[in-house]
Amino acid sequence: MKVVLARDLLKVNADLAAENRRAFERQGITVINLIGSPGAGKTTLLEKSLPFLTREAAVAVVEGDIATTRDAERIERLGVPVVQINTGGSCHLDAQMVASAVAELPMTKLDLVLVENVGNLVCPAAFDLGEQAKVAVLSVTEGNDKPAKYPRVFREAAAVIITKADLIPHTDFDLAFCRSELAALGSQAQVFVTSAAKEQGFAEGAAWLLKVRRGWRGVPGHSLSSCRSQL
Amino acid sequence: MKVVLARDLLKVNADLAAENRRAFERQGITVINLIGSPGAGKTTLLEKSLPFLTREAAVAVVEGDIATTRDAERIERLGVPVVQINTGGSCHLDAQMVASAVAELPMTKLDLVLVENVGNLVCPAAFDLGEQAKVAVLSVTEGNDKPAKYPRVFREAAAVIITKADLIPHTDFDLAFCRSELAALGSQAQVFVTSAAKEQGFAEGAAWLLKVRRGWRGVPGHSLSSCRSQL
Repeated sequence: MKVVLARDLLKVNADLAAENRRAFERQGITVINLIGSPGAGKTTLLEKSLPFLTREAAVAVVEGDIATTRDAERIERLGVPVVQINTGGSCHLDAQMVASAVAELPMTKLDLVLVENVGNLVCPAAFDLGEQAKVAVLSVTEGNDKPAKYPRVFREAAAVIITKADLIPHTDFDLAFCRSELAALGSQAQVFVTSAAKEQGFAEGAAWLLKVRRGWRGVPGHSLSSCRSQL
Repeated sequence: MKVVLARDLLKVNADLAAENRRAFERQGITVINLIGSPGAGKTTLLEKSLPFLTREAAVAVVEGDIATTRDAERIERLGVPVVQINTGGSCHLDAQMVASAVAELPMTKLDLVLVENVGNLVCPAAFDLGEQAKVAVLSVTEGNDKPAKYPRVFREAAAVIITKADLIPHTDFDLAFCRSELAALGSQAQVFVTSAAKEQGFAEGAAWLLKVRRGWRGVPGHSLSSCRSQL
């Protein structure tokens, strides 16, 4: 019974997500779904990447949080259009929430919308938002066993951004082991190693994202896997 | 519609949780629901606390993970009875899963069962397992804004265990600010600051837990709030 109800919800969401995706493709907008644990550094990643992205693309941000507008305030300070979704308890964004949020954005003028999901490695992976790609964010302090323990998001992510790399010397994080855990899932994600404290890795991540975007541009229905082979 | 379905699930769970709670009280067993983000250090907290707890109580552990048996293997090495629940995708434990797990434990011989929930600051807070208390685990690298952003678990927790305190010098974590964020939620949680690298804080946390347990023992229906006033 429980499974049936959950599947109904997922079906409703999948239909709405497909509508979002068609609308984004029609408008030529690339939408990225950013997923990571609480405190993985998703908002900091946005703050550090936006200066590189806005040089070449018209970018907006959708912030998903259970409560508070703190993340949106941080993005607003950078002069980037932002909409805050407060889920009021829900552990993930869904396609309906994203449709409502982008209705508040000047979509005809945008190239790229970065959606920061609720801090959660589990549920956001199950709810398609209509995005073109998921990006997983993993801080080194969470440990390198996370891909195996939270497989779905890491299996589906087009890129994995490792954050807080400056803390590696103080943890038992092992990048080679983490890569092997990703490979064991069949992941073909691009992996970027970043540090906000040392201002490292954000230019490379932003360049990848812009390249992926150019791969899609003007090629409706162009899939991420065919983009990958072009990179 | 969605909300109605969700409430039905929560009602079914609440009924099962009440059954669990009655059984645990009848058996004189204290059950703790340990909740934190992926990589917050929940399993390490158990590893470091169990030596103190097992001196004075018969303890078992229930490990909740979406996938893998890695956490249960770590606990097994300490010679403590442990049952691994693999939720197969579900983002939280529920009362039914816990009822099935404890059926595998020698309950008549136990004083204390520590349940490590799936790594997730959101959904586990909404699913009562029949525990006597929730304990929230927060690593300093997640940032001190987490109580405001994930209010439910921090509001309901009887204790908050801050982990990885040795990394404070490398982060912007501010313990006083974090305490003020907890206070703003109306939290009356005991706060313990721990570091596995420095072997600090685990004896104090374990002593609190054993004291809480003695407060309940032999006083069926004794609530945590009345325990608190005795401490």
